[in-house]
Amino acid sequence: MEVGKVANEKDSIGLEDEQVYDQALLDRLLFQSNIDEFRDEFLSMHTYEQSEYFEDSNEEVRQRIYEVLSPEEVADFFEQLEIDEEDYEALFDTMDATYASKVLEEMSYDNAVDIMNQLSKQKIVSLLTLMNKEDAKEIKALLHYEEDTAGGIMTTEYISLKATMPVKEALMHVKEQAPNAETIYVIFTVNDHKQLAGVLSLRDLIVAENDAYIEDIMSERVISANAADDQEDVAQKMRDYDFIAMPVVDYQDHLLGIITIDDILDVMDEEASEDYSRLAGVSDVDATNDSILKTATKRLPWLIILTFLGMITATILGSFEDTLSKVALLAAFIPIISGMSGNSGTQSLAVSVRNISTGEIDEQSKFKVALRETGSGFFSGLVCSILLFIIIIVLYGQPILAVIVGASLTIAMTVGTLVGSMIPLVMNKLKIDPAVASGPFITTINDIVSMLIYFGLATSFMSYLT
Amino acid sequence: MEVGKVANEKDSIGLEDEQVYDQALLDRLLFQSNIDEFRDEFLSMHTYEQSEYFEDSNEEVRQRIYEVLSPEEVADFFEQLEIDEEDYEALFDTMDATYASKVLEEMSYDNAVDIMNQLSKQKIVSLLTLMNKEDAKEIKALLHYEEDTAGGIMTTEYISLKATMPVKEALMHVKEQAPNAETIYVIFTVNDHKQLAGVLSLRDLIVAENDAYIEDIMSERVISANAADDQEDVAQKMRDYDFIAMPVVDYQDHLLGIITIDDILDVMDEEASEDYSRLAGVSDVDATNDSILKTATKRLPWLIILTFLGMITATILGSFEDTLSKVALLAAFIPIISGMSGNSGTQSLAVSVRNISTGEIDEQSKFKVALRETGSGFFSGLVCSILLFIIIIVLYGQPILAVIVGASLTIAMTVGTLVGSMIPLVMNKLKIDPAVASGPFITTINDIVSMLIYFGLATSFMSYLT
Repeated sequence: MEVGKVANEKDSIGLEDEQVYDQALLDRLLFQSNIDEFRDEFLSMHTYEQSEYFEDSNEEVRQRIYEVLSPEEVADFFEQLEIDEEDYEALFDTMDATYASKVLEEMSYDNAVDIMNQLSKQKIVSLLTLMNKEDAKEIKALLHYEEDTAGGIMTTEYISLKATMPVKEALMHVKEQAPNAETIYVIFTVNDHKQLAGVLSLRDLIVAENDAYIEDIMSERVISANAADDQEDVAQKMRDYDFIAMPVVDYQDHLLGIITIDDILDVMDEEASEDYSRLAGVSDVDATNDSILKTATKRLPWLIILTFLGMITATILGSFEDTLSKVALLAAFIPIISGMSGNSGTQSLAVSVRNISTGEIDEQSKFKVALRETGSGFFSGLVCSILLFIIIIVLYGQPILAVIVGASLTIAMTVGTLVGSMIPLVMNKLKIDPAVASGPFITTINDIVSMLIYFGLATSFMSYLT
Repeated sequence: MEVGKVANEKDSIGLEDEQVYDQALLDRLLFQSNIDEFRDEFLSMHTYEQSEYFEDSNEEVRQRIYEVLSPEEVADFFEQLEIDEEDYEALFDTMDATYASKVLEEMSYDNAVDIMNQLSKQKIVSLLTLMNKEDAKEIKALLHYEEDTAGGIMTTEYISLKATMPVKEALMHVKEQAPNAETIYVIFTVNDHKQLAGVLSLRDLIVAENDAYIEDIMSERVISANAADDQEDVAQKMRDYDFIAMPVVDYQDHLLGIITIDDILDVMDEEASEDYSRLAGVSDVDATNDSILKTATKRLPWLIILTFLGMITATILGSFEDTLSKVALLAAFIPIISGMSGNSGTQSLAVSVRNISTGEIDEQSKFKVALRETGSGFFSGLVCSILLFIIIIVLYGQPILAVIVGASLTIAMTVGTLVGSMIPLVMNKLKIDPAVASGPFITTINDIVSMLIYFGLATSFMSYLT
């Protein structure tokens, strides 16, 4: 939540000029005996760029950075560090424990907690021991919340004022508290029981008459998140209401912390990436640094399950060997029927999952949408079937085959959309992680169903075919 | 960009209690002869809730709302209106043109422009004519930018100060300009040629010594966006740098406007939804209000193309009728081979598209990732093939068939990942919209390729099979 201090003014922000710092220059300056030049150059960079440089550096460079920068200076760019979750353990293994604890101490609580959540229990305990008592206590409290909840992303560094304070005094107060606050643009008031009582923006404070009191300008109807709320719901709410910060309370309305908009951007990115990965049946679409073997190993469990599921389809088809050997041409339409049923199923799956994850419509409407999807699947199926019917008649001159293929396609696409739209909803209702209902899974289920329909029909009308 | 004024404090933000206002009550109050009660109730709601109420209302209610609320009051919640793009024309058809022009005038320029971009040329011209000259001029200028660019989402309502101004005076100035500014938290300075010269945050201003000047505390190295930059790149940059506002300049560095974080949240949501929809082969995953027929009609063009593509697969398979009629069991493995090749292709497609859209890695790395995907496809294919090989031997006792299916699966999965990861990259390079490389398209391409491989192999080794 700050303004940029970066690079030269000609920099556009196109994709190509991502690297706005000179890595080679920095590397050279870093290993000079006079370290001032490096410090001048490095500290004039925006913290995001500092973090980028650090991310791109090897172990030797990182060690040298710890030598020449204070924990405060390292903490500044650690706030924006984005490395793979599993790499944090190694990062802290190579850092002196006292130094590391100082770095975490200097960070804002929410970001320190995000990092510490990736470390082993043992390391967390030893780092907490080395910190000053107050910071350790705050961080410990935040570590208790689930990572994906409002509590897990909030920070306790907010500004609160007494409702009875005059506006003039309040501005002085904000100024004093500013260095330790995550944001000064949203200010809260609490009552004697530490319960959230009101909210005002710095804007309200600035434009207020000088003789006004906080209670005159604050709003007593506050939209807040509960600590246990899912981070995705919080993100949605903040987006809807255009908030730049939102208070987090417990069940008795005690103010626990705040969530700022910069964390929400990360949440939105994370959740979008998660939904997207699921649809493709990949665990994490963003892991660009993995080796071939690591990529393959991550996806293999999933692909092996699909192989076994695929064998069910194969076995079903194998049981229709008789039908197939009599009318070999039936096999030619296997891919189109299974493919179209899979495609329309994935489309409905996408709509269903999106409806669950944005939470924009209520439970009942979701099922209504699912039914509409199925209706649309039937209608689209019918149109495609008529098309296919005509093509088959023209190409092969076999009306019975055309009817069987056409009827199968319509039924398969209807059932496909039903499966695609309903399964995630039912899973969500049953509190099962809808991750299982990923794209490939739905596609394979639809394969099995559509082949049963197709060959069921074909075998029944066998006598007309041969 | 404001703080909440809403509902009662017990409201959590769970999915179930989306509707925090009482629609029936509001409807009743609205048609009472004494309209004050409605106005009190309605105007005490947060503008987001006002917009929700308006969206859920029918034509009669909307007309009555225009009667009892001033254009300023309607403008407040129109800022947060979220209706389907094609519905804006109808919305403005039923509104008195003078009233409508007043509403747009009172809105922030960027949101007014977003709405006007959905209207017909004719309506835009007549609305602009009715507005006061100054607003009309600003809006007209903003209408010139492409919708998806930095220029298209920026507003010209920013605060700029002279670099030579003392801090104390600056605070007074901010207070004066506040009512007309989209944000007061980020402040710019321009030189005599209106070129962007510096940036500071309100926080900088608040914590500054009273005897300081703007130039002492502003940063002269500003990260800005060019008006023609893609909105997605701007969003990425603002997320990386944790900005709450970013300046937009032209090629000569003249300050044109600013983009605020609330607009970026909408952009991120829009772009994530777009990527997601593409992967599923749906035009818009978020259109939840469409009828069955409308949903079907939207998807049909795509499904019809896929039907024709599917017929290519069918024709290819039809040409192998001989092979099929001799070894009918071959047909049993069609779904598993085409399915697995499609699945791994979609996984690679997802990674590739994500890499293009986040722009986090450079051009060369993207191709490196694509090659790694292919390597991983080969490796995963090999493992699944060995598994399938064993299963076929156990179930059917046909080693030659097992070899053919196994080999086909490995090749199909390797080629599948190659196609899935390369096609979007190549398209992007050739400046073709990668939308065409959606999930179903890749799956169908992979169907064709994998079937050619499978039946090519099977026909070659025919003599050993029978």
